[in-house]
Amino acid sequence: MKIAVLGTGGGGRAHAARLAELGHDVYVGTRDPEATLARTEPDMMGNVPYKEWLTDHPGITLLPFGEAASAADNLVINGIDGHNALATLTAISDQLAGKVLIDYAVPYLYNPDIEHPWPTPWGVMPKLDPCDTDSLGEQIQRALPDVKVVKSFVTQEQETVVNPKAIGGGDHTMFVAGQDAGAKKAVTDLLTSYGWTDVLDVGDIVCARGMEMYAGMHSAIGLALGGHFGVKVVRR
Amino acid sequence: MKIAVLGTGGGGRAHAARLAELGHDVYVGTRDPEATLARTEPDMMGNVPYKEWLTDHPGITLLPFGEAASAADNLVINGIDGHNALATLTAISDQLAGKVLIDYAVPYLYNPDIEHPWPTPWGVMPKLDPCDTDSLGEQIQRALPDVKVVKSFVTQEQETVVNPKAIGGGDHTMFVAGQDAGAKKAVTDLLTSYGWTDVLDVGDIVCARGMEMYAGMHSAIGLALGGHFGVKVVRR
Repeated sequence: MKIAVLGTGGGGRAHAARLAELGHDVYVGTRDPEATLARTEPDMMGNVPYKEWLTDHPGITLLPFGEAASAADNLVINGIDGHNALATLTAISDQLAGKVLIDYAVPYLYNPDIEHPWPTPWGVMPKLDPCDTDSLGEQIQRALPDVKVVKSFVTQEQETVVNPKAIGGGDHTMFVAGQDAGAKKAVTDLLTSYGWTDVLDVGDIVCARGMEMYAGMHSAIGLALGGHFGVKVVRR
Repeated sequence: MKIAVLGTGGGGRAHAARLAELGHDVYVGTRDPEATLARTEPDMMGNVPYKEWLTDHPGITLLPFGEAASAADNLVINGIDGHNALATLTAISDQLAGKVLIDYAVPYLYNPDIEHPWPTPWGVMPKLDPCDTDSLGEQIQRALPDVKVVKSFVTQEQETVVNPKAIGGGDHTMFVAGQDAGAKKAVTDLLTSYGWTDVLDVGDIVCARGMEMYAGMHSAIGLALGGHFGVKVVRR
């Protein structure tokens, strides 16, 4: 399949690499491909310059956001940070129309009082905006009514999302939420190809609130354990 | 041990019954014992009148809130709903001083626009107050600096908290958070006596935010599955 990944950060790279490994044609979207390729320093998360990463991942195509979305058959993964996702996606709404958009962003509010503010340090509970009475997932769905938004991925560690078997042999749970049953099926199929065996549909896009608000608990567990964990819904 | 349970609702009853079964002396606190015993109708959750319940659970002592707290050796379980907990606990701060207070309340804001507003219907994400930048657990700890507040229980279903083996043979995870290591140890020991084998200390009372904000995800999972589930933190 032709699949688009929007964003060149660690999450986007993890998906792009895994999708290429699975034999898909991967189109990565960025604001300005020339600028992205011109960088020679690690990004603020310490990821190597994108050009260097791309050399190790041949066959992945870097395009402007809208062109990457256009190139996708059906699936577009939103790897743009929560602070910028809504504006960036709205600007390419025509190219996203009719497609499935998988959103895993957490809408952390930028905090200029913290020395290394972005992304949030483990264990410090960051402010979410929106929170509780709305969610980023719902905002994106409202802004892009012709797009089938599915909230997923966000309740598990980034490296675990694309490789669930690294934790507990893969026996833990991924959630999907959204308005469109076919879109949730497409995302579940993608997750199955990543190795997930337990994908739980928790319902409507309103459940994006629960997934985003779980971010604090996820951070607390990660800090307590030093990372490397999954969460399993145990049935009776 | 002499253990106090504040509140006569379903959660308080589950703990009182389990503690009595384990051989503890249980002191249940209520605002006005005579009024509680005078009720002849089920409460708003459909629980049978307390007097009737008490007949089936002999040996449990019903007292005013402050007297119940005074009677405890060390452990006091707060089963007062999130809307009323802070005011009620502050009023008996002298009787709670020096003791361990286990808090599992979720600070749902009363919504008069919903027909059956209290407690919140499954699957509807209720408004939390406080949320994200503060938590009820922290509010209680600040209001009662001489009390050792431990947030726990809240991420699992009520019947599972007192009987974890009913789900997945008991192989799932309970969290504790609080300032005092000894208090968390005392709560962990209590949980172990209930049957918990995996109790994870997630840190400071600030982590109460994560536990309370997890309530929406808990509701969504419960609605998707029809209840009867646990959550396990799977290590690598």
